[in-house]
Amino acid sequence: MPHAEPPSPPGAVRRVAVIGAGTIGASWAACFLSRGLEVVVSDPSPDAESAVGRMIDAAWPVLQRLGAAPGADPTRWRFEPDPARAVEGAGFVQESAPERYAVKQALLPRLDAALPPEVVIASSSSGLLASRLGDGCRHPGRVLIGHPFNPPHLIPLVEIVGGDPAARQAALAFYRAVGKHPILLNKEVPGHLANRLQAALWREAAWLVDQGVASVADVDAAISEGPGLRWAIMGPHLTFHLAGGRGGMEHFLSHLGPALESWWADLSTPAHITPAMAEALTRGVAEEAAGRDIETLEARRDRLLAGLLALRRDDPG
Amino acid sequence: MPHAEPPSPPGAVRRVAVIGAGTIGASWAACFLSRGLEVVVSDPSPDAESAVGRMIDAAWPVLQRLGAAPGADPTRWRFEPDPARAVEGAGFVQESAPERYAVKQALLPRLDAALPPEVVIASSSSGLLASRLGDGCRHPGRVLIGHPFNPPHLIPLVEIVGGDPAARQAALAFYRAVGKHPILLNKEVPGHLANRLQAALWREAAWLVDQGVASVADVDAAISEGPGLRWAIMGPHLTFHLAGGRGGMEHFLSHLGPALESWWADLSTPAHITPAMAEALTRGVAEEAAGRDIETLEARRDRLLAGLLALRRDDPG
Repeated sequence: MPHAEPPSPPGAVRRVAVIGAGTIGASWAACFLSRGLEVVVSDPSPDAESAVGRMIDAAWPVLQRLGAAPGADPTRWRFEPDPARAVEGAGFVQESAPERYAVKQALLPRLDAALPPEVVIASSSSGLLASRLGDGCRHPGRVLIGHPFNPPHLIPLVEIVGGDPAARQAALAFYRAVGKHPILLNKEVPGHLANRLQAALWREAAWLVDQGVASVADVDAAISEGPGLRWAIMGPHLTFHLAGGRGGMEHFLSHLGPALESWWADLSTPAHITPAMAEALTRGVAEEAAGRDIETLEARRDRLLAGLLALRRDDPG
Repeated sequence: MPHAEPPSPPGAVRRVAVIGAGTIGASWAACFLSRGLEVVVSDPSPDAESAVGRMIDAAWPVLQRLGAAPGADPTRWRFEPDPARAVEGAGFVQESAPERYAVKQALLPRLDAALPPEVVIASSSSGLLASRLGDGCRHPGRVLIGHPFNPPHLIPLVEIVGGDPAARQAALAFYRAVGKHPILLNKEVPGHLANRLQAALWREAAWLVDQGVASVADVDAAISEGPGLRWAIMGPHLTFHLAGGRGGMEHFLSHLGPALESWWADLSTPAHITPAMAEALTRGVAEEAAGRDIETLEARRDRLLAGLLALRRDDPG
């Protein structure tokens, strides 16, 4: 039986336009639908519509398990190839077009021209600068980065960069209303926060493999069997706060700060992924995967991610 | 009713000596007891015995839930202040004395002199070099580092550094038998693997806070709501392997390597935790904790850690 009442929308937004429907865009569409929103998807590729449908169907069971809005409907979306028409009537726009200034700077002014000035246009960009994305728009202040993390329908993090204060606050409220965990960057830096932090950790990890200190599988286990378990529960600062015992962060810094500084001093700073490093990493990962293909590993990851998110949701806090 | 048969021990080891019984030593004792081993605990402090008893009692419910050996008995331990007597009859020694060469280099030769040469002496040291810990021992090759991760009764990682090949293999087999995930370092480097990787990530995290890019809470969320969730499931290399899609790590490196290199080039390399940085971190963590005390945060962490470990154990893989 179809629902008589439309599901209650998050905030004032009832319809979202998802512009660019590769893996990221399709995943966003599934996320928004699960929160009871209506979605219009646009993409220049003729194959995008069916691919989005498959993605939504695949993601739906886990989104329901993690808490779909009452009355959320996985069919409440339509495809519109023309991006300017797709954004008509949208209360929020999530753009996930290819990662090139030329592509986005041609696309975003068309969306901007078709929308009332208060509607936020959020770009999923991981690598471009927020300050350049509004070029050519009449209302560049409503253009900001809302960068998700793969897979976006499961990972809560959204990094908000750029935009004027009103747009930032509107994006913050919108992402919270759809169940995400948005964070605000006060300055733009390459890689935003999460990719920078990943890059910092991985630079050292790749160097340790390259120098023969340990195998790829053992370096991976040094995270997934150790600090990675804690980082799924709290970030590095709160982790160190607990390591300080009753004295918390202050005691931690005075007591263990010198050890951390001595490790900082010894960290590597390779500038490039050399061919030898790439070869060692590729061979090492193949050994670690031990015949399990990407689909098998991905299914395990998403199964455990869903379980982990449900565990955190149900914890008394 | 007491069990009629002794529980089956892991490998040939039936009794473990835990030398040094602060938080780490007591946590090791609880871990070994839960796997059906007999434990002798030694510490120079007169308060250690009762503290160890409290720690075992506190840890026992979660250890049972995560899979205690049949017949494992939380009372199957005794306290022996003299370390040389404590190791008598032990099949494995885990030393967790204070982190100073002077302390360990006085202690380890006494244990070495009291033990047959094939028994491994593993030190929990995070900061000392394995190659120096055997100084003064008749059998320095059986001395190695077996570094756990806090809290050791929950976190599977154990980093093995140093020792001769036979001792390394024996330690690997022993830690696996007690349910740990040991990894082997082929060379000794300051901080072993996990603390180096933590230090690399945290150096950038602290710098981002120091530069006002984001709050402590938002930098923490950039991990715990993002990559931290994935790192509880797989390490950074396998994560990137999946990010490469069907082409795996090789495709990832050729496609996203340049972006990672550009982020590497922009990473910070502060040498010191300045007073201003320490103040920003301490204040920011207090804001993030929002009135929750260390005990509350620790209880949540351990509850979620136990849930997460149970989730991974029960996954079909």
